Amino acid sequence: DSTLKVLTLNSNRGLAEEIASHIGTTLGKCTVSSFSDGEIQINIEESVRGCDVYVVQSTSTPVNQHIMELLIMIDALKRASARSINIVMPYYGYARQDRKSRSREPITAKLIANLLETAGANRVITLDLHAPQIQGFFDVPIDHLQGVPILSDYFEAKNIEDLIIVSPDHGGVTRTRKMADRLKAPIGIIDKRRPKPNVAEVMNIVGNIEGKTAILIDDIIDTAGTITLAANALIENGAKEVYACCTHPVLSGPAIERIENSQIKELVITNSIPLPEEKNTEKITQLSVAPLIGEAIIRVHELQSVSILFD
Amino acid sequence: DSTLKVLTLNSNRGLAEEIASHIGTTLGKCTVSSFSDGEIQINIEESVRGCDVYVVQSTSTPVNQHIMELLIMIDALKRASARSINIVMPYYGYARQDRKSRSREPITAKLIANLLETAGANRVITLDLHAPQIQGFFDVPIDHLQGVPILSDYFEAKNIEDLIIVSPDHGGVTRTRKMADRLKAPIGIIDKRRPKPNVAEVMNIVGNIEGKTAILIDDIIDTAGTITLAANALIENGAKEVYACCTHPVLSGPAIERIENSQIKELVITNSIPLPEEKNTEKITQLSVAPLIGEAIIRVHELQSVSILFD
Ligand SMILES: Nc1ncnc2c1ncn2[C@@H]1O[C@H](COP(=O)(O)O)[C@@H](O)[C@H]1O
Ligand SMILES: Nc1ncnc2c1ncn2[C@@H]1O[C@H](COP(=O)(O)O)[C@@H](O)[C@H]1O
Repeated sequence: DSTLKVLTLNSNRGLAEEIASHIGTTLGKCTVSSFSDGEIQINIEESVRGCDVYVVQSTSTPVNQHIMELLIMIDALKRASARSINIVMPYYGYARQDRKSRSREPITAKLIANLLETAGANRVITLDLHAPQIQGFFDVPIDHLQGVPILSDYFEAKNIEDLIIVSPDHGGVTRTRKMADRLKAPIGIIDKRRPKPNVAEVMNIVGNIEGKTAILIDDIIDTAGTITLAANALIENGAKEVYACCTHPVLSGPAIERIENSQIKELVITNSIPLPEEKNTEKITQLSVAPLIGEAIIRVHELQSVSILFD
Repeated sequence: DSTLKVLTLNSNRGLAEEIASHIGTTLGKCTVSSFSDGEIQINIEESVRGCDVYVVQSTSTPVNQHIMELLIMIDALKRASARSINIVMPYYGYARQDRKSRSREPITAKLIANLLETAGANRVITLDLHAPQIQGFFDVPIDHLQGVPILSDYFEAKNIEDLIIVSPDHGGVTRTRKMADRLKAPIGIIDKRRPKPNVAEVMNIVGNIEGKTAILIDDIIDTAGTITLAANALIENGAKEVYACCTHPVLSGPAIERIENSQIKELVITNSIPLPEEKNTEKITQLSVAPLIGEAIIRVHELQSVSILFD
């Protein structure tokens, strides 16, 4: 059967190493650097001819740099006769630009899908897309993994009594339901609405949180505005304590400061995006998605190898 | 006939304004900004439905940011029903990655062509491609403009006697010949070669430069290593004085310092890439390509309008 190779670009080298070691291999040799003028220079330092290559890259900040690294790597692998080019993208950047919500907006999430396929991607393995519809933006197979089991297992081990799982907005109710099923807890929803234009939003809490421990769950925490306002509203309305969790810790701008100053007791995230040293506070716990992604790669590769038998 | 609109992104707003004013119009209203996490946000603030849109963007430093701005803008224009999307790219970034010179190298210049077409570009207007073969990387029409007339006219007006036009390497001889024809001067070539591996290069000057005023011409000046070594070699070998010129002033890393410390009397460049304040020294003269590009747009648009008559 064909050789599996795991390569990494610059966004998430730590995770890539963990994934490779979970699979029982090491990272393929390649370097990604810049010429003096900032153009990306990629050197693949071992043959990939006939190999099934898995390229690990989250399109996290600096997102445009990380996208271009990925596209150029795919181009190089294609020209170097890799048998298949599989993109492992734990965090899919630009996922929030997934529809035209105003006139003349781009749909960048679809553009990225097209760019990856044009460059030569044969398959995408990703995690908790902001909208599951993004799967349909691809014509190549896409494996869509979920972070809820990892986050739920962590909270299950805490054996917290009187739990309620709360969605910070309407969009996240399905995800909240999944976690609640696993933890055998009820769900709540923060139901924000603006009574009139230019009047402050009202935070209405749907569900009984009185005296309970609430876990807020979201897919992405970016500037942390939504999640910290929600946490504070829960405490003000009688919750005993509030945890928060998400798959993708974008944590841009004022995020860390807001979390530190909020009523959130602990924030649980995954390593789909690496947490830089300076953002790693005592409140934050990071769980690894390497075993989840490693298993997915093993399964995909078994199927690719099996398909050879029928070739 | 259909409406012509000129839009600009962030790489070269000054040039775009000059181009628009040459055409007798103003820039279309749009803003290009970033979300908190660095993702690009584009707002096109006027209708482009049915318009022939010309988007001005050099893919200069920060090249990856500028490429993504351009691709996202093309996506937005396509979805906003522009009649044609014409890319005005005075400087084509990644043009030096135009072939596999070692194993497993990407051909990023071709990748960029594919990405532009995938996003929805209908035509490209560009200037002095590092290799003219890059025209063949596109399936859409490409207009390839030349900087030599602008640079030559500048030197012609100086009425310098005993000129020789010198190519700093073998790759630039055709361009040097064109300038020499215009200025009715002979050509010279800096003939670098490495006698043995790991032995310093020898600079051999082909052509009689004794007592002459030499003009070095190149397409791109990046770190300015080649051009400053060439200038110094010319003076050491008897040239009276040395001018240098190029179309694309990349001027990265040590470029300005090298130029300042070199025997180059004056460096003449174009504004295909804007020259930041801090790089603008007394030695540097910048010529505008706005009239050249403006005329090209007028011609292209006339043809597009004429074609409507036959639709
Ligand atoms: N990187 C980003 N940061 C903040 N907002 C974004 C970003 N990308 C897209 N958006 C906006 O977020 C909205 C979609 O978010 P959502 O309603 O959560 O799916 C749209 O109005 C987008 O314009
Ligand atoms: N941005 C860049 N800066 C410096 N060298 C580059 C750059 N892009 C490509 N190259 C290298 O430049 C060589 C091609 O330049 P040339 O021989 O002038 O066409 C190739 O070996 C490339 O690897």
